[in-house]
Amino acid sequence: MSTILLQHDGAIATVTLSHPGKLNAINLAMWEHLSATFAALSLNPDLRCIIVRGAGPNFAAGADIAEFPHIRSTSEQGIRYHQQIIAPALQAIAECQHPTIAAIEGACVGGGLEIACACDLRIAAPSARFGIPINRLGFPLAPGELQGLLQLIGRARTLEILLEGRVFDAAEAKDKGLLQRIADDVHGAAQESAQRIAAGAPLAARLNKILVRRLTPPVAPLNHEELEAAFSFLATHDYHEGVHSFLEKRKPVFTGK
Amino acid sequence: MSTILLQHDGAIATVTLSHPGKLNAINLAMWEHLSATFAALSLNPDLRCIIVRGAGPNFAAGADIAEFPHIRSTSEQGIRYHQQIIAPALQAIAECQHPTIAAIEGACVGGGLEIACACDLRIAAPSARFGIPINRLGFPLAPGELQGLLQLIGRARTLEILLEGRVFDAAEAKDKGLLQRIADDVHGAAQESAQRIAAGAPLAARLNKILVRRLTPPVAPLNHEELEAAFSFLATHDYHEGVHSFLEKRKPVFTGK
Amino acid sequence: MSTILLQHDGAIATVTLSHPGKLNAINLAMWEHLSATFAALSLNPDLRCIIVRGAGPNFAAGADIAEFPHIRSTSEQGIRYHQQIIAPALQAIAECQHPTIAAIEGACVGGGLEIACACDLRIAAPSARFGIPINRLGFPLAPGELQGLLQLIGRARTLEILLEGRVFDAAEAKDKGLLQRIADDVHGAAQESAQRIAAGAPLAARLNKILVRRLTPPVAPLNHEELEAAFSFLATHDYHEGVHSFLEKRKPVFTGK
Repeated sequence: MSTILLQHDGAIATVTLSHPGKLNAINLAMWEHLSATFAALSLNPDLRCIIVRGAGPNFAAGADIAEFPHIRSTSEQGIRYHQQIIAPALQAIAECQHPTIAAIEGACVGGGLEIACACDLRIAAPSARFGIPINRLGFPLAPGELQGLLQLIGRARTLEILLEGRVFDAAEAKDKGLLQRIADDVHGAAQESAQRIAAGAPLAARLNKILVRRLTPPVAPLNHEELEAAFSFLATHDYHEGVHSFLEKRKPVFTGK
Repeated sequence: MSTILLQHDGAIATVTLSHPGKLNAINLAMWEHLSATFAALSLNPDLRCIIVRGAGPNFAAGADIAEFPHIRSTSEQGIRYHQQIIAPALQAIAECQHPTIAAIEGACVGGGLEIACACDLRIAAPSARFGIPINRLGFPLAPGELQGLLQLIGRARTLEILLEGRVFDAAEAKDKGLLQRIADDVHGAAQESAQRIAAGAPLAARLNKILVRRLTPPVAPLNHEELEAAFSFLATHDYHEGVHSFLEKRKPVFTGK
Repeated sequence: MSTILLQHDGAIATVTLSHPGKLNAINLAMWEHLSATFAALSLNPDLRCIIVRGAGPNFAAGADIAEFPHIRSTSEQGIRYHQQIIAPALQAIAECQHPTIAAIEGACVGGGLEIACACDLRIAAPSARFGIPINRLGFPLAPGELQGLLQLIGRARTLEILLEGRVFDAAEAKDKGLLQRIADDVHGAAQESAQRIAAGAPLAARLNKILVRRLTPPVAPLNHEELEAAFSFLATHDYHEGVHSFLEKRKPVFTGK
């Protein structure tokens, strides 16, 4: 069954994304679980660092597309799903008062990459693979998910990832600014980083996180009209073609309508 | 004769900068032609990707300095030339609703580099060379041209390019964040990227571009006083020394006046 | 004795950080001296470039921790020390109208790295080492010092440096975007860059610097309440434990209080 696992080891907590047989694809319940998990972890004063990883040999393979025909078919549903469920989950990770490290093996794509980008640091195995291949699924990245990627790697690399929709390896991810480092023993390297962070003063770490956010140039939130426009794709032929061709394992035919 | 060539191949258009014998230096008429070309291409709903390249073995070698004594000698002329002709042309490229790829061989300097930076993605041949060597010409980069470079590569790299005025190779350009990739067959690689983009849903690509722009932290436009200050160099001895020494192929002598 | 040395060689000035026996650690008097030096240099119309370096084989090893128990023990003192002495010194360097180059050998940590980041360009010897290892000292980076680092290398790399508190080499610093280049003969390379800059038109260089700052997205200054929160760590046990354990050369024991 899909779930979010939580383990404590002294001042270090490990959050594990688990969805067996689906490369840990994050479904609606897991996004909500992730929000609640990080809200609770953030309030725990005894923690000093949180590691986020996937169960088994993958980090996470994105949202669960099989859910889309049921829960994300209208603009209203899209706004609820993305802005009221996924974006708050990513925000709960990004605004967690404790330092966070994504330890990445295998697939780290779509929603999985968004979760990794919401963490403070990212360490990956050489064989990890990255991307947001949604151009073939017929939809753009939702604004609440785009912002973290854009702040991390800038405009050109974000557009390259979204427009081409390629899946790429850890060396390219590091070159694009997505990773702090590549390590053969990714979980050992994440532990080492977490222990180094935990050996520092926790209040200082939390203040550093608060100040880094505060000193990042702000962007005005999208108004209702802009949100409607951002989710207008849900009413298009191409979106439904993208999702259905994916589920039917055939090549999509997009018409721009 | 200098011109902007336009070719259509299905959903992919190719815009070619052509100024034979001048390394495709962009003159006033070409900047205006470029604005009109991209304004029209942006409105064409059948397009999915646009490639920008130079005619022959160069991308473009900057503005046409020979024009400067006639069309850019006073602060008023400078504001008209840069803010009302060049900046709108770069904006027409940057705000084109379709994804854009610069395919770069040979010289990509000055205005040529600005055009490349206004595109979404940049692919270059290993032998391409880059720079904005205007420090020897006695003038700073105009604000409407600086912004694209600054957003792409940040403050330190932008100042390095402008203050040192060096011309550098593709490996250094990639290292500075100017390029997505280096490819021996740059036109083949640009075609491959364009076809991959064109195989995705076009409305999704357009929404991604709109949202990436919308989520980029804004900068207030320069007021009239700031624009006057930005073009105050046109009244200096050093500017005229820079342009005339270039046209006379001699070393400039700058006095700071 | 600790001091800031100043040398003129034509249009190029060299500012040398000197604190013998302390790896050129910057004490209160040096920060004030640095402010005054750059305020005066900025007003000198004959200058075209300024090189900043350390005396002997190090750049600078941070603030002088031995001073902390006396001059930085309360929130009021912290605001005065960081926001009214260090931040203005860094601002005087960053806003100096002339181009600035940091030539870095040996230790470039803490306040030393902040000074380097306030310069326009940074060139380092392969053996130089970088970092802000203050997590073991029990305090966060002050907001006026954080901003320059954040603008230069972005959120993730800034947090990596602060949270892990590692000291790293020039190759990693270059990879993180902290350096323009690495040169075996760092002072020769800095001279070469300075002479190239000085050969360009000085007014153009100054306008480029002004416009790059003007076109950087603004961040609202911290209000009094935010400043109080940023310096609240001075009232914590962990801060005093961090500083005293450093001065007593023992391992700190942080309790999060």
